[in-house]
Amino acid sequence: MLNAQVLGHPAQDNALWVKADHGQGQSRLLLDCGSGTLSALPFSELRAVDHVLFSHLHMDHVAGFDDLFRATFDRTDRENHIWGPEGTACILSHRFQGYWWNYASQLRATWLVHEVSADAVQSFRFEANEAFAVMHPAGSRLHQGVILETPQVRVQAISLQHHGPCLGFVLREPDRVAVDPAALAASGLRAGPWLSQLKAGVGGDLVIDGVTYHTEALNDALLRCEPGDSLAYLTDFLLDERQRLRLGRELRSVGHLYAEAQYAPEDGDLAQRHHHTTVDQVGRLASLAQVGELTLLHLSRRYGPDRWPELLDAARKHFGPARFPEGWLTGSEASRS
Amino acid sequence: MLNAQVLGHPAQDNALWVKADHGQGQSRLLLDCGSGTLSALPFSELRAVDHVLFSHLHMDHVAGFDDLFRATFDRTDRENHIWGPEGTACILSHRFQGYWWNYASQLRATWLVHEVSADAVQSFRFEANEAFAVMHPAGSRLHQGVILETPQVRVQAISLQHHGPCLGFVLREPDRVAVDPAALAASGLRAGPWLSQLKAGVGGDLVIDGVTYHTEALNDALLRCEPGDSLAYLTDFLLDERQRLRLGRELRSVGHLYAEAQYAPEDGDLAQRHHHTTVDQVGRLASLAQVGELTLLHLSRRYGPDRWPELLDAARKHFGPARFPEGWLTGSEASRS
Repeated sequence: MLNAQVLGHPAQDNALWVKADHGQGQSRLLLDCGSGTLSALPFSELRAVDHVLFSHLHMDHVAGFDDLFRATFDRTDRENHIWGPEGTACILSHRFQGYWWNYASQLRATWLVHEVSADAVQSFRFEANEAFAVMHPAGSRLHQGVILETPQVRVQAISLQHHGPCLGFVLREPDRVAVDPAALAASGLRAGPWLSQLKAGVGGDLVIDGVTYHTEALNDALLRCEPGDSLAYLTDFLLDERQRLRLGRELRSVGHLYAEAQYAPEDGDLAQRHHHTTVDQVGRLASLAQVGELTLLHLSRRYGPDRWPELLDAARKHFGPARFPEGWLTGSEASRS
Repeated sequence: MLNAQVLGHPAQDNALWVKADHGQGQSRLLLDCGSGTLSALPFSELRAVDHVLFSHLHMDHVAGFDDLFRATFDRTDRENHIWGPEGTACILSHRFQGYWWNYASQLRATWLVHEVSADAVQSFRFEANEAFAVMHPAGSRLHQGVILETPQVRVQAISLQHHGPCLGFVLREPDRVAVDPAALAASGLRAGPWLSQLKAGVGGDLVIDGVTYHTEALNDALLRCEPGDSLAYLTDFLLDERQRLRLGRELRSVGHLYAEAQYAPEDGDLAQRHHHTTVDQVGRLASLAQVGELTLLHLSRRYGPDRWPELLDAARKHFGPARFPEGWLTGSEASRS
């Protein structure tokens, strides 16, 4: 399951927190961290973030980094990974050194910063006990879109156009093997612990209620492959017709799209100039890509709360189920669908 | 007048905001900026800060810098000054570069960072349109304690012991020239705009209600010199007997001492080891220095709210008027004096 939560408030900085959970373990991903966005996360969750993924490093996407780093800078009980577009390692190197590290010799943590370009990931290592002063090259590798894979989630980077390198991210769970309830009923077999064994891929024979079955036959009869959850996070990008067609293909059938909706439809010229989107452009993208759900975030400060319902409606004209994160419109529940 | 406000919450990061106002103008000073401390300031005040003074650059004193810098990074309507102990310019240089400055060529602001050592101030200049990438030497000068002087306030730096360079600050208004109300009454003269002229130092003759007076005689008869407000801000420092005697002298007769009170009296060994104070040590310092008021801040997270009244009492045993910032104890008013 992909549990996602939009952090931050409407017309302020936002971030997306994702916990990918497949029952036997979790991966926690933080996508951007604007100012104040992390205050909604329990400290234990903040401390447990596995990967930070930056779309880009403009102020409103990185200004909460101190809060994250303070909770994790000397973490040795899990790996420390940061991802972002080209230039990220240098900027993070400065971020890491933005403190007085007079106690660095007592520290032990290692941090890895990964710069994602169109077809490669270049990594750099930083050591806390060096006061993060050295940017050690830590290898590079080619990629074909997927930049990161954990047992719970696969992360694909998408190039966005925002006055320079900017990344969108598509997160997909691995496909799940599940028991088909209808097939189980038709088989006449009683559900039991043997189902877990079957899904876990044991081979050979299984004894069920005193009768021996071959797992291969049971697999064929009972198990179906289901697609895992998927979501995409896209912020700070130009969405002209060309980009819409490209991104429509890239996002096809993503379960849930979280996307910036910076401007009102009448401010398309501003969106074009600043390489941002309008709400209606995002609604059209969601419709073209046939995503399952659309949550809008990163609204411009230029529109007061009185205009937010109208902005949402502009997206809904193109994609009916569009919504804001819970609580943005009413203080408790934004969905009107 | 020195209007001071402790920012932040008990057992979280703190900062001190000071507006020095002499009627014809203001200087706004921010002393440290821990995480979340700036959210209590109106944006217009944040935007108008004249000088940021860092005691030192541990995380809990600088983690709110993004919020400040975001409001001011390209400010050209006033000068941009940051002060701190040796090493500050290098750390700030990293802070300045912790963003993607792809639009730097459009920026215009200049920032000056001043490193304060025992007897000198060394300054460095950073240009926004260079993406803050160059640390230009901008001169050095000797000082004898006073590092900064505006029409409203004079700032003196005090060296503190905290595992390395750390600064305390004493802020003093210039002495004020005021009209002695009793002398005015005795003179039989009616108050009027001529009093402002007199205080402003006009010379020659003044005509009051049709009668001509020489200003020299009026000055002698009516004007008195009054000491201006003063305050000191001391945080993160060892306060053993030697330091207490030294600081007692440095702070003598300061109007209002704002000081860290990190540990309970029984945790003196922790205070000693981490170069912090205990509440009773701070009470004794306030008593020795004969300050007018004492406000305690920067409490350790190790003590829950149930212990805060007891910590305050421990300071009050030595300095009766000691208090916490307004609202810390009761949610509205902390003073029990």
